[in-house]
Amino acid sequence: MAFKKLDAWLETHLDESLEELSRLVNQPSIAAQGLGLEACAEMVQEMFVRRGFQAEILPTAGAPIVVAERRGRSDRRLLFYNHYDVQPPDPLDLWTSPPFTATRREGKLYGRGVSDDKGHLTARLFALDAWLATSGELPCTVKFIVEGEEEIASPNLPPFVRQHKERLQADACIWEFGGIDQRGVPMQYLGLRGICYVELSVETANTDLHSGLGGSIMPNAAWRLTWALASLKGPDERIRIPGFYEHVRPPSERDRQLLAQLPDPAEEYRQRFGISGFLKGLQGGLELRLAEVFEPTCTICGLTSGYQGAGSKTVQPARATAKVDFRLVPDQEPEDILRKLRAHLDANGFADVQICYLGGESPARTDPDHPFIDLVCETAREVYGQPMQRVPLVGGSGPNAPFIHDLGLPVATAGLGYPDTRAHAPDENIRLDLYLQHARHMARLLGAFAKA
Amino acid sequence: MAFKKLDAWLETHLDESLEELSRLVNQPSIAAQGLGLEACAEMVQEMFVRRGFQAEILPTAGAPIVVAERRGRSDRRLLFYNHYDVQPPDPLDLWTSPPFTATRREGKLYGRGVSDDKGHLTARLFALDAWLATSGELPCTVKFIVEGEEEIASPNLPPFVRQHKERLQADACIWEFGGIDQRGVPMQYLGLRGICYVELSVETANTDLHSGLGGSIMPNAAWRLTWALASLKGPDERIRIPGFYEHVRPPSERDRQLLAQLPDPAEEYRQRFGISGFLKGLQGGLELRLAEVFEPTCTICGLTSGYQGAGSKTVQPARATAKVDFRLVPDQEPEDILRKLRAHLDANGFADVQICYLGGESPARTDPDHPFIDLVCETAREVYGQPMQRVPLVGGSGPNAPFIHDLGLPVATAGLGYPDTRAHAPDENIRLDLYLQHARHMARLLGAFAKA
Repeated sequence: MAFKKLDAWLETHLDESLEELSRLVNQPSIAAQGLGLEACAEMVQEMFVRRGFQAEILPTAGAPIVVAERRGRSDRRLLFYNHYDVQPPDPLDLWTSPPFTATRREGKLYGRGVSDDKGHLTARLFALDAWLATSGELPCTVKFIVEGEEEIASPNLPPFVRQHKERLQADACIWEFGGIDQRGVPMQYLGLRGICYVELSVETANTDLHSGLGGSIMPNAAWRLTWALASLKGPDERIRIPGFYEHVRPPSERDRQLLAQLPDPAEEYRQRFGISGFLKGLQGGLELRLAEVFEPTCTICGLTSGYQGAGSKTVQPARATAKVDFRLVPDQEPEDILRKLRAHLDANGFADVQICYLGGESPARTDPDHPFIDLVCETAREVYGQPMQRVPLVGGSGPNAPFIHDLGLPVATAGLGYPDTRAHAPDENIRLDLYLQHARHMARLLGAFAKA
Repeated sequence: MAFKKLDAWLETHLDESLEELSRLVNQPSIAAQGLGLEACAEMVQEMFVRRGFQAEILPTAGAPIVVAERRGRSDRRLLFYNHYDVQPPDPLDLWTSPPFTATRREGKLYGRGVSDDKGHLTARLFALDAWLATSGELPCTVKFIVEGEEEIASPNLPPFVRQHKERLQADACIWEFGGIDQRGVPMQYLGLRGICYVELSVETANTDLHSGLGGSIMPNAAWRLTWALASLKGPDERIRIPGFYEHVRPPSERDRQLLAQLPDPAEEYRQRFGISGFLKGLQGGLELRLAEVFEPTCTICGLTSGYQGAGSKTVQPARATAKVDFRLVPDQEPEDILRKLRAHLDANGFADVQICYLGGESPARTDPDHPFIDLVCETAREVYGQPMQRVPLVGGSGPNAPFIHDLGLPVATAGLGYPDTRAHAPDENIRLDLYLQHARHMARLLGAFAKA
C-alpha cells in the first residue's frame, strides 16, 4: 500500500512544513485593516510555483485572489478553498507570545492564523509534497483558490467564482477548515450559516457635551444607540425585526438524527468558556445542539462611545457605534435581512441610526449522504482510527454558497482544528500531531479520489 | 476712587498673569488618570507663597489639597474655592493646538484647564496682586482651598472640609467658576446639581468567543449591558429606577420667576451643538430652562465592548463596560441613588451587572436673595455695564454642599467663562478680555466685601 511510503515521508518532513507555515504566519495579513494582503498573496503564489503549479494572483475590488492548478494522473479534479487573511489580533495583551511571531511550545504552534487558515493551506501542500516526493506526480488534478477577505465575509469572492467558473470547475471541493471535536472524533461539517455584518452609528451633535449641560434636554448618541440595539433583541433572545424569521427552514428529521448522535457539548462549553449557563434556559443535549446552529442570531460584536479611559469623565457623547452580526440559516439572505433591519429601525423611530453594511454571505449546505462526503469520511478512518462524524450545519459562516450553488460542487470539510484552537481569539494555536494527521488524511483522499 | 488705580495696574500687567496661567496649564493634572497632580499642587503652593500667603499642601486619600491664607486690613474673611485638576483631553485629534501647550490665538488662550479651572485661579491671584501692588495689603482676609479631584466628583473634599472647619471658617465663599452668557450678561449661578457617577460592567465568559459559535446559546456581555442600560431609561427620558424621583423638590415660584427672566437658549443650543431638536418635545423658553436644571438625569458617558477597530471582527465579547452619570437635584442624595440603582438592576434580572461607584456629590443651593449675593451681583455692574443676573440652579455639579451645609457659607459664582469656552471638550479656551474683567470684578468685590 502506497500510504505507508506517504506516511513515512510526512513523518520525516514535518519540520520543513512547519517552517513554511511559520514564515506565512509571520507575515501579517489582516483583511479588516487592509494590512499585508498583497505581500501575503505573493508568498502564497510562490508556494504554489515552487511546487510546479500554474499560479496567478488575480485582482478583485478588494484583496487579490490566488488561483493555482496542477494536473495529475487522473482526470478527476479536486478543488481546495483556503484563505490567507486572518482576524485582527486584539486584545494584544492576552497573547502569551506575539501574534505575528509563530512560536512553538509543548507540541503546539501559536500565532494569529496558524489554524485559521494558514495551517490548513500548508498542511495540504505538505500532503501534495508527499505525493510529488514519493511518486513524482499528483494522483488527480488539484486546484486551489486562496482568497484574502474570508474574515471580512468574502465580499468579492462570490462574483469572482461566477466570473471564473470555467477555470474553477472541479468534481468536488475541500473546505478551508475542519478538525476533531472534544472526544477526538474527526468531524464532517456539511453546511455553514450565512452572515450579515453591519456597523450601526449615531451622531447627535457636532461635539461631545458637558454631561451637566446636555443630560436633561439634548440628545445623547450613546442612549440612541442603546435603545436602537435593545429594539433588535431583548433578554428573551427573540429577534424583533419584522420578517426576520420568515425564510428560516426548520431542521429535517435527518438533521435531528445526525445532531442527536453528537455528544452533549454543555459541560465542555461551561468549562472552556467559564460561562454560568446557556441562553433561553437551555441545559444541553439535542436542544442545545439544535439552537446552536439552526437558530439565526443577532450578536453585538463591539460597542464604542464617549469616554472609555480610567476613572470618570462627565461627557455626553456626540457619537456612538456598534458592530453587529447576524448569523443566517437556510434560506435567509443577507440583503433581505439588511432591508428588514433598515425598515425596523425606521419604523421604531431610529431613522437617525446609520447602517454601514460591512459584508454578507448566504447560508449553504451539502447533502449529508453525497458519495464525495462518504469518501472524505471513510479515508479518515485509517488516520484517526474512526470515520468522520457528520454534522449537518455549523454555527460559523463562510462563502460556501458560490461553490455549492454556482459551481454545483459537493463541499466537504477536513482539517487540523481542535476545540482549544482559539481561532479569532488570543493564543490561537494548532497541535502538531493533528497537523500531521490532516496531511496524512489529505494524502489518502487524493489517492482515493483519483480512482473514484 | 481706588478702583481706577487697580484697573490701571491690571491692564498693564495682564501678560504676566497669562504667563503664570500658561505655566500652570502646561503642567498636566488629570484627576481621572492620577496624572501630574502632586507636581501641579506644588506649583499652586508656590504661587501662594510668592504672594505672602501661608500655604500648605495637605494630604487626602486621593490628590492633595492646597490651603492658603493671608490676613488683610479688615476682619472679614472671603474664601475662594478652586481646583487644579482638569478633565482628560481626549479626543486628542480634535484639538487645534496641543491641550497641554497653552496657545494664544486671536484674543484667546487655548489649552486643557485654561478655563476649568486654572484660569479662574490665576485671574483671582491677579486681582490680589493689584491690591498688593497698589496698597501693599489686602483689604480683607483671603483664604483659598484648591483641590485636585473636582473633575472626578471631589471624593475627598467633603470630609476634608468638615475636618478643617476651623481653618476654613469665613464669612462668604466665591466659587470656582462663573461667566457671561451668550448675551454678554454676567451670571450669578446660585446652586449646583449633585452627581452619582458609576461604571457598570458585565463579564459573561473568560474569553471572547467566535460569534458563529456563541451567538445562539451563550451569553454576550455587550447584550447584557445594553439591556441593563435600556432598563434604566427609555426614549421617553423617564428614569425607571423605582424611587429615583422620590426626593426631587420642584422649583419654587421665585425659581420660576428667575428662570423666566433668562433669554430662551433654544436657538443658541441648536446652532452651537448642531443638534436637530431637544428631548421630550421641548421647544424652548421657560419649559426648556426648567427641564435643563430642575430635572435629574441619567447620562451614558461612555461605552466599551468587543471589537472597536476598522471593518468587521466576528467576535462575541466577554466583557462590556459603561460609564454612567446621574445629575441630582435637591434633595436627592448620591448614596440613596446608588442603592436604588443596585436594587433596580437586581430586580430586573441584572444581578450580573457590577456597579463601581466612581464618585458622588450632593446638590446644594444658596438663597438667591442673600446679602452677599447682592454684593457680588452689584460689584459686577461697573465692570460689565450691568449687574449679574441670578440663576437659581445650573446643570453641572460640584462640591458646594460642604461649603453651604457644613461651613454655613453663602456661595456666589463669578468668573471668566463664556458660552464657547468648551470646558470638558477639545479646544477649551478663554477670552483674554473676560479674563481681565473677572480680575477687575474680584478686585472690586474684595474692596466692597471688606467694608460690608
